[in-house]
Amino acid sequence: MKKQNISDAVIRRLPRYYRYLNDLQKKETIRVSSNLLSSKMGFTASQIRQDFSCFGEFGQQGYGYNVEDLKREISQILGMDRGHHIVLVGVGNLGHALLNNFNFSACGFAMDCAFDVDPSLVGTEINGTRIYHSDKMAEVFAEKGTPDVAVLCVPKNVAQKLTDQLVEMGVMGFWNITNIELNSSVPGVEFEEIHLSDSLLTLSYRISNK
Amino acid sequence: MKKQNISDAVIRRLPRYYRYLNDLQKKETIRVSSNLLSSKMGFTASQIRQDFSCFGEFGQQGYGYNVEDLKREISQILGMDRGHHIVLVGVGNLGHALLNNFNFSACGFAMDCAFDVDPSLVGTEINGTRIYHSDKMAEVFAEKGTPDVAVLCVPKNVAQKLTDQLVEMGVMGFWNITNIELNSSVPGVEFEEIHLSDSLLTLSYRISNK
Repeated sequence: MKKQNISDAVIRRLPRYYRYLNDLQKKETIRVSSNLLSSKMGFTASQIRQDFSCFGEFGQQGYGYNVEDLKREISQILGMDRGHHIVLVGVGNLGHALLNNFNFSACGFAMDCAFDVDPSLVGTEINGTRIYHSDKMAEVFAEKGTPDVAVLCVPKNVAQKLTDQLVEMGVMGFWNITNIELNSSVPGVEFEEIHLSDSLLTLSYRISNK
Repeated sequence: MKKQNISDAVIRRLPRYYRYLNDLQKKETIRVSSNLLSSKMGFTASQIRQDFSCFGEFGQQGYGYNVEDLKREISQILGMDRGHHIVLVGVGNLGHALLNNFNFSACGFAMDCAFDVDPSLVGTEINGTRIYHSDKMAEVFAEKGTPDVAVLCVPKNVAQKLTDQLVEMGVMGFWNITNIELNSSVPGVEFEEIHLSDSLLTLSYRISNK
């Protein structure tokens, strides 16, 4: 597989391809053309062929792509087969919602445990995930191993301090759902933010400009 | 303002510009150059100038952009000044989290009310938003006016049926947080989906390919 100079824009399209291929596979579709993918996804067929060519040759001219093979290749590129471990910090409403409803394992992540400071939550389980006191993070990581990613659902005012602590404990990936920008001076720490407002504003534009 | 042939990619960048300009304004920054925006946001300065030129001339060569003016222009383009009304359907953990934590009014939306089928929620308020029984939607809309957008936080198995009902009542915009694809055969209905998994998979790629 060649993996050079892949732009952020291509990377951000890969999960969408993965979702569509997953849907096709559920419908027992065996092969798909770039034209069909194009009509389903709103990218041009040439854009799709170009995206896939960044990673090597998946398709065969005139025959389209094998759905299962292409899905597996994309899942490997996305690192879904790496056995990543993840923890969730901050079990408020949003943390609850994620633990109850979000399929971490379908994204290739094993949910190790969650942390909160609320004594009424500590020691309980949500959907099979045990909640520990946030003071115990170092101990829990020593026992279970340091996770690859921490999901941050904590209040804004503690988010950066907590991030610094987690980085010090060796956590190098952050899924940031706190709605504030976080950063680290340690090289190689990755942050991915969810900005719900960007999505709602895009909808606002579309209903305003018809 | 000229508003022709604006690509979806440009539209999706506008909320990010808005966020950064908002941050700059909070720091009492008066003017900003496309070079500074570029270094903050990771787009090229030429990309930024090109994006803004889609909507007319905001900047002046060599002087940069006035932060307040540019923010106001972008907010108007995004329709944040249109007085949009919104309701939330499905007050589970995610619905609770949004009502408690998400700033709808900062996106230009007035939150009219919420709906759920759980009798223990009906009649209560969350963060000032009254919850009605989902059976009463038509009555409530008759009284308060039909909202521009419905936020859908309902279980997957009822999402499409509920969407069809809401479209029939005149709702033309859907902020879809159900994690399944929804659609409508009625022309002009707009759907905007949040795909949390796309975001986590992007992070998975980045921690896997270092």
